[in-house]
Amino acid sequence: MGELTAANRRWVLAGRPRGMVDEQTVRLDTGERPEPDTGQALAAVRWLSIDPTIRTWMDDRPGYMPPIGLGEVVRGAGIADVTDSRSDRYAVGDLLYGMTGWQEWVLAGPGEQSMQVLPAGIEPGAALNVLGVNGMTAWFGLLEVGAMQAGDCVVVSAAAGATGSLVGQIARLKGAGRVVGIAGGPEKCAWVTDTLGFDAAVDYRADGLAAALRRQCAQGIDLYFDNVGGAILDVCLGQLAMRGRVVLCGAISLYNATEPQPGPANLVNLIPRRGRMEGFIILDYRDRFLPAQMELAAWMADGRIVHAEHVVHGLERAPEALNMLFSGANTGKVVVEL
Amino acid sequence: MGELTAANRRWVLAGRPRGMVDEQTVRLDTGERPEPDTGQALAAVRWLSIDPTIRTWMDDRPGYMPPIGLGEVVRGAGIADVTDSRSDRYAVGDLLYGMTGWQEWVLAGPGEQSMQVLPAGIEPGAALNVLGVNGMTAWFGLLEVGAMQAGDCVVVSAAAGATGSLVGQIARLKGAGRVVGIAGGPEKCAWVTDTLGFDAAVDYRADGLAAALRRQCAQGIDLYFDNVGGAILDVCLGQLAMRGRVVLCGAISLYNATEPQPGPANLVNLIPRRGRMEGFIILDYRDRFLPAQMELAAWMADGRIVHAEHVVHGLERAPEALNMLFSGANTGKVVVEL
Repeated sequence: MGELTAANRRWVLAGRPRGMVDEQTVRLDTGERPEPDTGQALAAVRWLSIDPTIRTWMDDRPGYMPPIGLGEVVRGAGIADVTDSRSDRYAVGDLLYGMTGWQEWVLAGPGEQSMQVLPAGIEPGAALNVLGVNGMTAWFGLLEVGAMQAGDCVVVSAAAGATGSLVGQIARLKGAGRVVGIAGGPEKCAWVTDTLGFDAAVDYRADGLAAALRRQCAQGIDLYFDNVGGAILDVCLGQLAMRGRVVLCGAISLYNATEPQPGPANLVNLIPRRGRMEGFIILDYRDRFLPAQMELAAWMADGRIVHAEHVVHGLERAPEALNMLFSGANTGKVVVEL
Repeated sequence: MGELTAANRRWVLAGRPRGMVDEQTVRLDTGERPEPDTGQALAAVRWLSIDPTIRTWMDDRPGYMPPIGLGEVVRGAGIADVTDSRSDRYAVGDLLYGMTGWQEWVLAGPGEQSMQVLPAGIEPGAALNVLGVNGMTAWFGLLEVGAMQAGDCVVVSAAAGATGSLVGQIARLKGAGRVVGIAGGPEKCAWVTDTLGFDAAVDYRADGLAAALRRQCAQGIDLYFDNVGGAILDVCLGQLAMRGRVVLCGAISLYNATEPQPGPANLVNLIPRRGRMEGFIILDYRDRFLPAQMELAAWMADGRIVHAEHVVHGLERAPEALNMLFSGANTGKVVVEL
């Protein structure tokens, strides 16, 4: 954690990235620590949630949020603790969850500055992961967008990542017939089956992804939860079962592409298979997070959900942490601890 | 119409096509005219419905129906009239609609041989087109799969084709906000606006399809009814409105491809736009055809629906008629009159 000074170290967007984030893209600079006005609280940022979507906000391209402006602090979720308060909502010592940005200090207040006070006893790792964006994305993507049915053969890519690892576990607990993860390398595959309890894992870095998936889902894929796009999406589209559903959650294989990438040739398979493919943004489900969080919290308390955080230490390593999501260096949720 | 002899001229599948259908693919031969058994009727085929899906059945590839076997009569819908009956269901003189195949004579009977007796007074062109597969495909694709809402900006490709021309007209009659057709060449575009009453038509053969569509749908495309796949699908995906829907009906730009074609790069746009893309096969809606047919028939009687048939004369020209669908030589529904 940073020293408590009147300074505020922060990562600002210096240029639009081409490919992975590098020193042309973001710059660590020092601003002034903000002073809380009436109705605001000052909070020291403790953890950053490192999510693939941050990379998409860096491009100057329309998306579900405006792009981060050049010179602005990099946008991102995190947890901060209140050190000074002029607000009735936030008390000194409260842990707050919200859009902290990649910086040491943040103001919580009304409107866009609003942050959520974490209930006592919630572990910050779990708050960012299972009960945070990843858990909510897995839950609503699988159960609402994907309309998972008991007995479904569910396949999820980036299965050793934060969201993917939860998708498979929720699917299992909600009665999926078979849960198959796609991950990169034998260690991750072993973790997905042995620790997370998926029925099978397929290594996309090995040869023969299509054949391996066909062995695992002999009747076809009822629900494919896609975190990666590109070639893996294409293979899964080619193996959809009748009335199969493809949940488009993310496309990490594309976010650093410097040229437009072709889409999946097997898209046309949606016609004879009566398949459905649907994209979503978890923010749309915000009003319905609470019951999902309660069920997930109960499963965690019972030890029925495993979660893992890959902790990177120091604000200065935030860009490196983001790049891990695309190189596949992480297992579980990447967080930066300040 | 063929001479009534004991012979049965018929097109059989001679080989798997590469690209357009040619003399390597289909062979006109002569079999014996079948004799009706108890429970069967013999009918003389009068009209063939020429549909893009026939081309997909010729490939040796899993689809929504088994491929046509080598040496088998080419599968296809049509209208035939009963000349001899040993069935209680079919009387001499009845016009029957069903899977006649590309031949002069067909047996109607129980089970798979079942055919529908057309009510008196229905014009055969309308039966094959508005009240047949094209009308049903347009209706259920637009209203059920696409869940069209009043006020939607609806775009349809192959708008001068049988299905596309009905999609736009049904959309207009059901309260779409704006109906835009995509068609090839100025004549078809003029027909789509002036005769069919679409709000606008865009010529995909001219430069600047994306810019032209953006002008026509300034707020984005709420519903894109896709008959073609390929590059046009890609452009429309790039211009989806929030919660836009893409109905995958067919992909005529791909059916004659001899190499796998890349899918649409703009697929990833489904995520920020919360878009949905869904394929369907009209056979699944068979039990619900009647009310749709009644509404369409009423509109036709009131002159509120325009339909056009492009009639090709002679069984021997059936392969040429099929190829027209892919070269774009037709306006409206292609039928072969025997």
